[in-house]
Amino acid sequence: VLPTEPTRRDLGRPNDLEAPVNSDPDHQEDLARIFGDRAINDENTLRTHSRDQVGDERYYASPATVVYPETTGEIVELMRWANLTGTPVTPRGAGSGLAGAAIPVPGGVVCNMSRMNRILDVDTDNLMVVVEPGVVTRTLDTVLEPHGLFFAGYPMSEEICSIGGNVAENAGGGRAVKYGVTADYVRGADVVTATGDVLHLGGKLLKNVAGYNLLQLMIGSEGTLGIFTQLTIQVIPRPRERGVLFASFVSAHAAAQAVSALKRRLSNPPSSLEYIDGPTARDTNEALPGSKRLVIPDAAAFLLVEIDSNGDRDLEADLNEAGLIIAAEGGVSLSRGVSSDEVERAWRLRKQVPWWVKQHAGPQQAAEDIVVPPASVPQLVELAEDLRSRFGVRIPLYGHAGDGNLHLRPMKPDSMDLVEWSDLVPRILTSLYQGIAKMGGTISGEHGIGRKRVKYLAAFLDPVELRILRSLKETMDPNGILNPGVVLD
Amino acid sequence: VLPTEPTRRDLGRPNDLEAPVNSDPDHQEDLARIFGDRAINDENTLRTHSRDQVGDERYYASPATVVYPETTGEIVELMRWANLTGTPVTPRGAGSGLAGAAIPVPGGVVCNMSRMNRILDVDTDNLMVVVEPGVVTRTLDTVLEPHGLFFAGYPMSEEICSIGGNVAENAGGGRAVKYGVTADYVRGADVVTATGDVLHLGGKLLKNVAGYNLLQLMIGSEGTLGIFTQLTIQVIPRPRERGVLFASFVSAHAAAQAVSALKRRLSNPPSSLEYIDGPTARDTNEALPGSKRLVIPDAAAFLLVEIDSNGDRDLEADLNEAGLIIAAEGGVSLSRGVSSDEVERAWRLRKQVPWWVKQHAGPQQAAEDIVVPPASVPQLVELAEDLRSRFGVRIPLYGHAGDGNLHLRPMKPDSMDLVEWSDLVPRILTSLYQGIAKMGGTISGEHGIGRKRVKYLAAFLDPVELRILRSLKETMDPNGILNPGVVLD
Repeated sequence: VLPTEPTRRDLGRPNDLEAPVNSDPDHQEDLARIFGDRAINDENTLRTHSRDQVGDERYYASPATVVYPETTGEIVELMRWANLTGTPVTPRGAGSGLAGAAIPVPGGVVCNMSRMNRILDVDTDNLMVVVEPGVVTRTLDTVLEPHGLFFAGYPMSEEICSIGGNVAENAGGGRAVKYGVTADYVRGADVVTATGDVLHLGGKLLKNVAGYNLLQLMIGSEGTLGIFTQLTIQVIPRPRERGVLFASFVSAHAAAQAVSALKRRLSNPPSSLEYIDGPTARDTNEALPGSKRLVIPDAAAFLLVEIDSNGDRDLEADLNEAGLIIAAEGGVSLSRGVSSDEVERAWRLRKQVPWWVKQHAGPQQAAEDIVVPPASVPQLVELAEDLRSRFGVRIPLYGHAGDGNLHLRPMKPDSMDLVEWSDLVPRILTSLYQGIAKMGGTISGEHGIGRKRVKYLAAFLDPVELRILRSLKETMDPNGILNPGVVLD
Repeated sequence: VLPTEPTRRDLGRPNDLEAPVNSDPDHQEDLARIFGDRAINDENTLRTHSRDQVGDERYYASPATVVYPETTGEIVELMRWANLTGTPVTPRGAGSGLAGAAIPVPGGVVCNMSRMNRILDVDTDNLMVVVEPGVVTRTLDTVLEPHGLFFAGYPMSEEICSIGGNVAENAGGGRAVKYGVTADYVRGADVVTATGDVLHLGGKLLKNVAGYNLLQLMIGSEGTLGIFTQLTIQVIPRPRERGVLFASFVSAHAAAQAVSALKRRLSNPPSSLEYIDGPTARDTNEALPGSKRLVIPDAAAFLLVEIDSNGDRDLEADLNEAGLIIAAEGGVSLSRGVSSDEVERAWRLRKQVPWWVKQHAGPQQAAEDIVVPPASVPQLVELAEDLRSRFGVRIPLYGHAGDGNLHLRPMKPDSMDLVEWSDLVPRILTSLYQGIAKMGGTISGEHGIGRKRVKYLAAFLDPVELRILRSLKETMDPNGILNPGVVLD
């Protein structure tokens, strides 16, 4: 059963930037003893750490202190101290999350992992890397490139996000349709538990059934069960060539159906299969600087198909095959090519979409992260159309159609006042969630539950599962110290 | 720290087939009320269910009753009854496990899943199947073949093992080097918990981060955290062609190094990369009926390389490429081809190896399931050679070299008496485990901990992890009803 529509009051909470609940001056001293001048509580730092990329400031909350550990030992000391004093601790990667998992409880401590950013081992024999969690995903990619290797589980925000955050959220991304998600590549981890113990899980092993899969329980637990301090990640040979095809469809339904056809019939399976609704693609394209803009028509939807190869395939032929499938499904290929210029141009548009939406969606944004069975993408496209007409608002729809994972983002009409909007959004979400529940879908494919979706989780997990998740949390964090209010309330 | 060498007394236990500890006649009546004539306690049934494929009868123990559920509801009733009466329940798939996970505690109840064997849904749009756990893996494959689909996570024992057992053990197999293991394909499950609740986890979804990954915690938990009653499994397009290359090496070390070279340099990544030591391959080959026997020389080691394709590659060229790499590494291609006859002949030998060993290894067998970082396979081969000369016994070594997962099986010399042998085996294992611990390896890649490796698990997991695993088990099975003595003691 979906919860009744939440009101503005129970969804939001006061913006408490000015008045942290817990600002015990002893705490600042204690933390300075552990972290020295890396325990910071100036106004600017607290403000930065009161938010992530959630586009709804009602979720923001200021910590009392931000600490920047450089060693596992410091995090152990932090967690022991936090249990003694009852202070909540929220781990934070790059703060690029979209569900509020890195937002602290008011007056808590944020544990910023950005200084633990060493790449400890690039093991080209085992095809594994060992990294600290603060490594920026793109940085790892740059280090791997000369070895002809890559980390396949990268998310779309690779330029800013950190590996630790990717793992904590089990991030997906633009190539998951071929390569899977972050969790598929994590083979080992050092973790500081909520009670301040250190766990060494897994190793440079491709198979491992020695004991329950605690590693996979930790991955995607959004900083609520432990803090990663080291990660062993499998890397794979880097595709040597990439080709893209960008296509338009006069019918959104036809575009959605072409997704299935491409997945089933391409002899070289697509490495990306992305959907953008027509108006969003056009407006984003318009907003890009001109010289590299795509020329795109007035269509209902667009698909970006990427195909890659390790150098032994005729990618042009593969793209032609994709073009024929698209034509048979009613689409028109607008651009197609294997040059880095063509690849970059298509991805530049795709990657700009969330930023364009964020800039134009107004306050109190809902950035949804729906996932449905892959064959239900046409129904999800219809549901979005339904919601647009029923509620009279613009709702961009875009994302990883090949995985059944699409982002859906209602935009506040300029004419609507904020009170009306904050009542309308939960009604849109409830309709959306009711619709996807019927399809066998769920509320997050890659962004996580964070703080935003806690109240909806109960509607999508059965009560037994929810009870077990709570008991696992209590078992591993008996004092409720680690990132309380995230995933579970 | 590895445990001191266990003595025969603490490793073994009395063969209690004749005297189940718990044979309360009321229990038989209770179970008959739930299961009717599917609650069985005749001598033959109890004997069959007192063992699995563990080659050491000291682990065997007789249940008091075997039940054959046909519905989830019956399993719910069973578990509630078991908690009330304090009766241990051991779920059992096909009994093809190699670590004793399906062996009951004396006088417990075995829950035989073989009657829940319906294929409920072959969803060719979503590329998912929904099955009951008792479906035999090969049966599913036969059903998928006409759709051009396959379940990639199949184990070597596909002809006999069941899907539920595959999932409970997170089975690997001969194609994991390309396609991964069972866990990589399980997208949803219905599970009866130890306390008799029903959990619905996941669905036909390719991405899902809604809550902690309870599904992956259940997978590989060897029937100690829940009983699967329904499984949603992703299937993938079936490779249309397969080719094999069977090669000999005068040096085992060279064969092991060729594994890395093949993984790194083949443009079409191998779908299987299997190792067999020379004497074992020759003796197994000798024991096969003649007409389809391979002609193999007196070599130190053999590799079986399989390459597959969805029909758009020149497999002969791919095999030539593999042949050149093997030649450069000092190997000689003995047979190479894409005909079903050639493929079958090579696999027939490989699949017969464990059966040949089982037949000739004598009583009290140790079938080891070592996994090391993939680049450490040459060291593992050396370690096996070391153990052979140090302990003066024959030790077949074979398996999934591409994954770093090799089976190592000491054989009792005919001249050695059983008392001496039962003292020697734990000493061999301790040396083996000390060696692989130094390589960063662990004690099971695909067979599981079961009953056989419980005492060694503590040496390979850190104490914090072990404590957490125990607390997870206690949280989910407070009365210790579900498969006690398996994974954890």
